[in-house]
Amino acid sequence: MHYIFRNTRYIDVIRGEVIEHRDIEIEDGKIKAIEGSNTLSGGEVIDGSNLLLVPGFVNAHTHLGMSYFRNYADDMDLNTWLTTAIWPLEAHLTGDDIYWASLLSMAEGIMSGTTTFCDMYYEMDRVADAALDIGMRGLLTRGLTDIDGQGEEKLEEVRMLYANCHGKGNGRLQVAPAPHAIYTCSGKYIKEIIGLAKEMDGIIHVHASETEKEVEDSLNEYKKTPVEYMCDLGLNDVHTIAAHCVHMREEEMDMVDSDKFFPVYNPSSNLKLASGFAPIKEFLDKGFKVALGTDGDSSNNNQNMLEEMHIASIVNKAVTMDPEAVSAKEVLRMATINGAEALGRADEIGSIEVGKRADIACFNLNTSSFTPLNNLISALCYSAQAEDVEHVLIDGEFVLRNRKFTRLNLDDVRENVERKFGELLERKALNDEMNLEN
Amino acid sequence: MHYIFRNTRYIDVIRGEVIEHRDIEIEDGKIKAIEGSNTLSGGEVIDGSNLLLVPGFVNAHTHLGMSYFRNYADDMDLNTWLTTAIWPLEAHLTGDDIYWASLLSMAEGIMSGTTTFCDMYYEMDRVADAALDIGMRGLLTRGLTDIDGQGEEKLEEVRMLYANCHGKGNGRLQVAPAPHAIYTCSGKYIKEIIGLAKEMDGIIHVHASETEKEVEDSLNEYKKTPVEYMCDLGLNDVHTIAAHCVHMREEEMDMVDSDKFFPVYNPSSNLKLASGFAPIKEFLDKGFKVALGTDGDSSNNNQNMLEEMHIASIVNKAVTMDPEAVSAKEVLRMATINGAEALGRADEIGSIEVGKRADIACFNLNTSSFTPLNNLISALCYSAQAEDVEHVLIDGEFVLRNRKFTRLNLDDVRENVERKFGELLERKALNDEMNLEN
Repeated sequence: MHYIFRNTRYIDVIRGEVIEHRDIEIEDGKIKAIEGSNTLSGGEVIDGSNLLLVPGFVNAHTHLGMSYFRNYADDMDLNTWLTTAIWPLEAHLTGDDIYWASLLSMAEGIMSGTTTFCDMYYEMDRVADAALDIGMRGLLTRGLTDIDGQGEEKLEEVRMLYANCHGKGNGRLQVAPAPHAIYTCSGKYIKEIIGLAKEMDGIIHVHASETEKEVEDSLNEYKKTPVEYMCDLGLNDVHTIAAHCVHMREEEMDMVDSDKFFPVYNPSSNLKLASGFAPIKEFLDKGFKVALGTDGDSSNNNQNMLEEMHIASIVNKAVTMDPEAVSAKEVLRMATINGAEALGRADEIGSIEVGKRADIACFNLNTSSFTPLNNLISALCYSAQAEDVEHVLIDGEFVLRNRKFTRLNLDDVRENVERKFGELLERKALNDEMNLEN
Repeated sequence: MHYIFRNTRYIDVIRGEVIEHRDIEIEDGKIKAIEGSNTLSGGEVIDGSNLLLVPGFVNAHTHLGMSYFRNYADDMDLNTWLTTAIWPLEAHLTGDDIYWASLLSMAEGIMSGTTTFCDMYYEMDRVADAALDIGMRGLLTRGLTDIDGQGEEKLEEVRMLYANCHGKGNGRLQVAPAPHAIYTCSGKYIKEIIGLAKEMDGIIHVHASETEKEVEDSLNEYKKTPVEYMCDLGLNDVHTIAAHCVHMREEEMDMVDSDKFFPVYNPSSNLKLASGFAPIKEFLDKGFKVALGTDGDSSNNNQNMLEEMHIASIVNKAVTMDPEAVSAKEVLRMATINGAEALGRADEIGSIEVGKRADIACFNLNTSSFTPLNNLISALCYSAQAEDVEHVLIDGEFVLRNRKFTRLNLDDVRENVERKFGELLERKALNDEMNLEN
């Protein structure tokens, strides 16, 4: 596939600038050339005069398979929500269920400009199938817990997943282990997982300091805060994608290295679950490359990265009482190049530069969100809607073109999710009935 | 116009319930009947099986004419923003400019399910023209200040506006005076405006306690908090639409009557300008019917009420550290029936009930946001996108059908806004040049 976006503009997220009047050539999955307007030729030429090309967003923390639980139980406290609503249903999920739910989450992400995910769930080989089918890039991380006594089997699963899926889809898929959290993994298990990560690419994905309760329990049990505790278990030996970090303290920030520890901010989820306000300004001031995530549909309840950018920027202005804090440029970096850094792939993705893979969201500027044409970075952060995403390329291929998926039919995906959810509720009801009888 | 939505479902916002399997008949601008599926006949029949009918949202505080300033100057402190960016341009706005900008804001509102606005700006006769052209319902409130010595002329304008526009468009348009704020109006002027309001429908629209600075200045100058000060000027004699109320204190809440004082929450604007977190839970606990608004495009930067609902709900859960606070049902009421109450029109609009005007947003349920079909009120608040709004009826007329405007072409509106903005920038540049020469 060979394309030229003629006479277009794109965002240089690193310098925080809009570069206008450019031809952008895409070939063999890569950004081959960026030159002045009307200078490049070859391949299919696409008029880019009404488009804004943005690096595809990196959703650095999600649970793609949870779309069934979207709008299923809201406005509840976390414990009641998990124990009475989510877990009893989750126990009945099959690999097929997770395939369809993940496909829907990926589709929703793509429709709002996302090209890469970092997913933590299970049946990850089926998540890989979904990603291969829709054409998305992602890091597959199997959520690991040993409180159920089945920790070792799960490590074996990760080894198999790495052997079978790492590098698949022209290198789009990668695999890493994910210790779920300090309250679901023993210290010994976390050490083992870190050891396993070192045999692979040296990356782990973990939930850290999400709630006050997690910090309090950690202090009670280990006399250490969560990140301090994990540092003692070897955290600094690996590259860490750390979801949430809402209650991470300044002294913990100083215990880790900002080139190896990447906080992933999930504003919608943190607010909706009343987890609190993550210290984003402090992280940025200390030089952390904060990434951005949606979390799963069960706690968000969507996969729209534009909403996360918007909320990330405005909430932190009120938290700091500083209207200049966490600017549109900063959140755009969070959603792109910082996400790429967090996933250890900044050499490949996260910005529009010659030589990088062509993961690009094309926004239609002929929309009310972008009228009049003022600061386009502000527009992306504060006024853009998912609806404005016209095309999405991943690895140089149109996966969404004129807002239609090229490789699948969204209605089929939705209908399968609806059907699978009906079957899941039936299986659970049958099981509850049998339990009552026994 | 006579329609039947066959076999559909709608939200009863008052009881917070989704009512399924209904035929809804609309004739002469009104909701004529709601009966069981497949029982009603007459007029054009529309298959409603994949639609969710929601009362059109009431955007209870906005400045429609400010779309030019969207994404024009962001991430700035309020004072620099107003004095260096907004006011110098605003000084050159013409009536025509305001017509086109208002039309764009209205279009954006309608595309996200909004059917009624409460606008505070100037050249309000041209805002009326825009509303009549697009078919929207609204309260036109001329922003009044006397710090420029022209207070009396503006009161005369309001009288004219009331004479010419109140009740226009089959009663869709209403008019009320709007003292801008206590820092731009003298006490004497506020009293006069309250007197004028009593000659009309007894309604005023005002900015109140938006920032800490406003409260501090009021305490310094009048030894009273802003609402206390306004109460002494006669506020309790009128029905008040009070925008922001971010820093309104508990004792001030007790000075006003919740049947006559309506706080309008503008979460995006309050967060983005770092004004603070409005005490929404406290207002609701005290029985205030809090309404919801977008504020102008200059500080939001869009007119999407779905975003305001989403942010209103999740931010207040984190503020109160209570995941059950400010539920989806409550924010849906804020965006609909409470907005209608705030505008003094709850007998006409704000809910889907037989006899009320037919102001209805029809959401397409065959979308990823609504898959799977779980709690539809949660879905509206947490996962729905503007793109899911398929049709909008105002006063029983389709103003948006299959996501196309019926009375105008959105591209024309956008092009006119773009052209007018270019001319505005030229006028200002020319003026700056002449000022330099003199």
